[in-house]
Amino acid sequence: MAAAANSAIQRLLHPRSIAVLGASDNPIKLSGRPIELMKRFGYTGRLLPINARRAEVQGLPAYRGLDEVDGEIDLAMVMLPADKVVDGLRACAARGIPAAIVGASGFAEIGPRGEHLQRQLAEVIAETGIRVLGPNCLGMFNLRDRAMPTFTSAMDDTSELVDGPVAFVSQSGAFGTFIFSAAQNAGLGISHFLNTGNEADLSVAEVLGGLVETDGVDVLMAYLEGVHRGRELLAVARRADELDKPILLVKVGSSEAGARAAQSHTASLAGEDAVFDGAARQHGIVRLAGQEQLLDTAQVFANGRRARGRRLSTLSLSGGAGVLMADVASDNGLLVQPWDEAWQQRMAEVIPAYGSPRNPIDLTATLISDPDLLRRGLDVAVQHPGTDMIAVLLGNADNASEQLIDAIEQAHRATDRPLVVVWTGGSGRPRRRLQELGIPCFTDPGRAAAALGKLADFSLRPPLPSPERPDDIDDQVVRAIVQDARDQGRAQLDEHESSRLIAAYGIPCAGAFPAATPDAAVAAAHDLGGPVAVKLLSDRIGHKSDVGGVRLGLTDDAEIRAAAGELLDIARGAGDPGARLLVQRMAGGGTELIAGIKHDPAFGPVVVVGFGGVLVDVLADSQVGVAPLDAAAAERLLLSLRGSRLFGEVRGKPARDLAAAADAVARLSWLAHDLADDIAELDVNPLLLDEAGKGVVAVDCLAVLNPAE
Amino acid sequence: MAAAANSAIQRLLHPRSIAVLGASDNPIKLSGRPIELMKRFGYTGRLLPINARRAEVQGLPAYRGLDEVDGEIDLAMVMLPADKVVDGLRACAARGIPAAIVGASGFAEIGPRGEHLQRQLAEVIAETGIRVLGPNCLGMFNLRDRAMPTFTSAMDDTSELVDGPVAFVSQSGAFGTFIFSAAQNAGLGISHFLNTGNEADLSVAEVLGGLVETDGVDVLMAYLEGVHRGRELLAVARRADELDKPILLVKVGSSEAGARAAQSHTASLAGEDAVFDGAARQHGIVRLAGQEQLLDTAQVFANGRRARGRRLSTLSLSGGAGVLMADVASDNGLLVQPWDEAWQQRMAEVIPAYGSPRNPIDLTATLISDPDLLRRGLDVAVQHPGTDMIAVLLGNADNASEQLIDAIEQAHRATDRPLVVVWTGGSGRPRRRLQELGIPCFTDPGRAAAALGKLADFSLRPPLPSPERPDDIDDQVVRAIVQDARDQGRAQLDEHESSRLIAAYGIPCAGAFPAATPDAAVAAAHDLGGPVAVKLLSDRIGHKSDVGGVRLGLTDDAEIRAAAGELLDIARGAGDPGARLLVQRMAGGGTELIAGIKHDPAFGPVVVVGFGGVLVDVLADSQVGVAPLDAAAAERLLLSLRGSRLFGEVRGKPARDLAAAADAVARLSWLAHDLADDIAELDVNPLLLDEAGKGVVAVDCLAVLNPAE
Repeated sequence: MAAAANSAIQRLLHPRSIAVLGASDNPIKLSGRPIELMKRFGYTGRLLPINARRAEVQGLPAYRGLDEVDGEIDLAMVMLPADKVVDGLRACAARGIPAAIVGASGFAEIGPRGEHLQRQLAEVIAETGIRVLGPNCLGMFNLRDRAMPTFTSAMDDTSELVDGPVAFVSQSGAFGTFIFSAAQNAGLGISHFLNTGNEADLSVAEVLGGLVETDGVDVLMAYLEGVHRGRELLAVARRADELDKPILLVKVGSSEAGARAAQSHTASLAGEDAVFDGAARQHGIVRLAGQEQLLDTAQVFANGRRARGRRLSTLSLSGGAGVLMADVASDNGLLVQPWDEAWQQRMAEVIPAYGSPRNPIDLTATLISDPDLLRRGLDVAVQHPGTDMIAVLLGNADNASEQLIDAIEQAHRATDRPLVVVWTGGSGRPRRRLQELGIPCFTDPGRAAAALGKLADFSLRPPLPSPERPDDIDDQVVRAIVQDARDQGRAQLDEHESSRLIAAYGIPCAGAFPAATPDAAVAAAHDLGGPVAVKLLSDRIGHKSDVGGVRLGLTDDAEIRAAAGELLDIARGAGDPGARLLVQRMAGGGTELIAGIKHDPAFGPVVVVGFGGVLVDVLADSQVGVAPLDAAAAERLLLSLRGSRLFGEVRGKPARDLAAAADAVARLSWLAHDLADDIAELDVNPLLLDEAGKGVVAVDCLAVLNPAE
Repeated sequence: MAAAANSAIQRLLHPRSIAVLGASDNPIKLSGRPIELMKRFGYTGRLLPINARRAEVQGLPAYRGLDEVDGEIDLAMVMLPADKVVDGLRACAARGIPAAIVGASGFAEIGPRGEHLQRQLAEVIAETGIRVLGPNCLGMFNLRDRAMPTFTSAMDDTSELVDGPVAFVSQSGAFGTFIFSAAQNAGLGISHFLNTGNEADLSVAEVLGGLVETDGVDVLMAYLEGVHRGRELLAVARRADELDKPILLVKVGSSEAGARAAQSHTASLAGEDAVFDGAARQHGIVRLAGQEQLLDTAQVFANGRRARGRRLSTLSLSGGAGVLMADVASDNGLLVQPWDEAWQQRMAEVIPAYGSPRNPIDLTATLISDPDLLRRGLDVAVQHPGTDMIAVLLGNADNASEQLIDAIEQAHRATDRPLVVVWTGGSGRPRRRLQELGIPCFTDPGRAAAALGKLADFSLRPPLPSPERPDDIDDQVVRAIVQDARDQGRAQLDEHESSRLIAAYGIPCAGAFPAATPDAAVAAAHDLGGPVAVKLLSDRIGHKSDVGGVRLGLTDDAEIRAAAGELLDIARGAGDPGARLLVQRMAGGGTELIAGIKHDPAFGPVVVVGFGGVLVDVLADSQVGVAPLDAAAAERLLLSLRGSRLFGEVRGKPARDLAAAADAVARLSWLAHDLADDIAELDVNPLLLDEAGKGVVAVDCLAVLNPAE
């Protein structure tokens, strides 16, 4: 993003002056709403109604055209019908306005007729350089400046709005405002809301890019229906990571049913969800399953605290509630461990004898008649060095709530560790009061635990990948292999070429020689030594095992010669009389990985890893990383497989060479990155993992090229 | 449960007269609260304060002792200190009162001193036959009769209580009342609430057993911290299944951390959670992870509707919200499928062109300005034959809510299919209104989908197992094998005995002969024919593979003789000079199952199944069923394994003989049931599954007996 564009986005986010094109005098009409809202909530900048037929709009002086306005205009809110928008934008650009919002619908979302209009819009944007939010969007608001170029009805019944450190960008207008409204109900302060609509220009990622640089915006929330330009989002995630600002994100279309619907209903293309998910995780983006989790998580992030570990101490007035919290905390990757003896002793001194000082700490229901018990318990908990996070579990008890809240507030001030409250039942007033005090408060242990789990994950996140290209890549070989295939008009590399390609990237391959005849195969086997595999080598036959084109564990010359003859017969039968053979040294047994490359429409080249056999075939246990990766990120990718215990000592087999596997995957990711224009797909299957320290070896490899341009 | 006991429980649940022992004149004191509550809410029966020192209590005539009361007394609420409870209960029993509630704490929950008191309490109960709720419990209430023998503070701020078809039994007092209060906040009507406390007598299961027989109670909710007598709960589940009344249940202690805490904090022993989970699923109990899911699920069950299939149609005013709903619906086992063309056409006729009639159906945000659009859309949806459930997704829109609610209510009346609303944001008034109309309403699509998923699971539940003992079990052989081992003072059966045991239950075993010498082994191999395995046969060496005690695939006499000699040497080295050999016909390759028996402290004999290899070792993919099972239930058990696709055609292998495997597991479950007193553990590992129609064969088996009594 150029600095100028960024500046345009900043002026969109924080406009000192807003011209409303087509502003209506009627505050109820859509085109009257932006003026009405900014008057009602007290916009701090210059509000400029533009209306060709009126000198006054809703009591404000109006202008017949943009030319009549003196001074700079930061933002134009274009409230014109779809077919007038293009001309309106041209006028804005001519007037030097850097950014505009187009509210009108009737563009790409309505099909062919609208697509034509949206193309015209895109042309104006490209020609003039004006940055546009929309079309088909509700606009934005910024509560800090009370800038509200929007016609949403979400604030119709509201006179007060809760400001806060959370900014929210939504592709959907309607659902976006529902989430905004739910956030307000939950007492979660929102500083900025933007709806990107059809994204003819500005995407959610670009808007987030502007917000992440905004002081006082500490938490970024996004609601996405589809992602076109994934790398843009990842760049913003990298910046957010630097600034320690979490991106909390809901993206719909995770299910097959959902993805189908996402494609049918918006102008967005839902990228393959697994790729999105892997890319997000790799870049520290906190993905959430729905709006409630989004707001719950924002609540624990909003006060800026971070967890320095995963150890949760819970204090509750019901033993059972503590156990329930321990259950759900475990489900969310937190540790609820018994305190050590000395600290249990300290806790035991301040709580009733029939309580439990172990953790989960049971303060007993005596708490209701003796609220000071909570203060005493929390006093100990905030001092306990093995506590990374604290959860207080209460319920009902409206009558005792003042003292309980005081005790919690004191403890919250006495520590910089995250502290949350679960207050189930009752009037709800204690919850609201705690939230006003900046103390996250929930009604359900499970929701609190889920939010704390996300907080811990983010707080303890590994560094983002900072891959460095290995300096031992043999670029000359790589270029030659690709060029050969291109010159011969081939779209597929044969196994030998594919293996040489990954070998040039430093990935160990099983020793192999091509051979054109049975005699040559025997000679190759002699050169290799030991038992060999003989395989069909063809750039026309994709799945050689399907045609019986692989013979394993051959040792004597007669066997090899016979097998070679049979395979060449098979090739002729399968329509490739020019096929050769590959004679390959048999690799020892090992744990089988599958590692591949593919090209994602939104994120470009990615690597995919999984375990061979049951796990990938039956459980579809695979993970995706965006290329390139460093070895540490590749290792995390492998460890995120469900079967990751297979890397360790298991079933009497010693631990596997995970480091070598990670190195191979990282190198593969560089291949994916470097040859993004040439390689459409590449599969290493299997990559055999020997025991730790003994490396990996690729036993089979197949690459498919992109069609030539 | 005897009829008398049941009748005592019915009188506890619906008392026509309640004596309060130790009733205080002070309505704020714990011992004054039951009277205060029943006066405030208007108990319809006879309320009898018993107070040795007062003639009047809180304006009611009081009695000095139970003897002074005329007529029957259904229930005694014993509000005496712990050390007076035993005498009080004796007096109640002497007066012929069938049931009592003991509120006092100071029993088993406080350790040794209290355990002594609780033993005394148990003795009185056993001697007199009085049924007791508690001790250490808050009591119960029944809103139908306004019977409120409880000293909970949950209703302190309330003058109105929402009655309804849901009864709730909680082991925990405090957390139970929080859940009750949260239910009231959510508009969920509760007819009965009971807190079982220490369960010196009445368990949650027994109380549920009384409630399930109560007319007007259609949904049973339970909160459990531990289960002692699991079979009691399953018997109630069976009755609830007959009456089509769901049991919705939260049981804490699912995690290791939680189970540890559950044991430390209550007098309950948390049975192994996986067993509980399997038993619950097998008996149609709907287990939920926490209180919010419990109440959400109760909400969809409360109006009595059932789903006749899993096909969900969603109508939303935001395309994205529809996609999100499709995602979360899929996660919960529901199907959001595009409608067929003809019905899409019908929907398309009533919605805007830029909406989507496919399903998820996007009615577009036009809905807000044209609420009739929802009525038109729902008109089509309720007629659509391929719709099993309907979800309407709305948000904010308070101003249009009246017309929207009317449209929803009309549709709800026009169909008997489940219909739920997700209304995100806004004032909350529309949600409350819909709930009053009996229409489940949520704020979050995920929560609605989870609840609908549970409703579908319950509606479509398979019949409970009705196992019939196979008539071909060779009981004589079974008795002889067990008796032999008992006579010899052995706790372990050797492989041959174990295999004969399961063979007597009709489970196919690989052919095998024991042999004491190498020569006998060769002779045995000749008798079996084909390649054989030779294994150590010892009741002292548990894991024969660990000592190298298994030789596979032996074909010629010399091989067999040599192996036999080596194995006998190994046995001598391992301290069993009397060991013999087992010569077994080699079984062909197949899919490996593990099937076992163990004894659960709460549920008794259970069977455990899993796939051999990676799935069980790495993913701990196993399932538990309570014995005995019928073949259909055994098949469901196997299909609930995560790796269940292995039963089908996969990786080029034909489908496996699932029916034969299910039959073997069912037979094993009968063995577990019949020999519950003798067999502590039994493992069949592996049970090899051949392709469909070709059966299964047990290749290795080991049984361990319970210590002799």
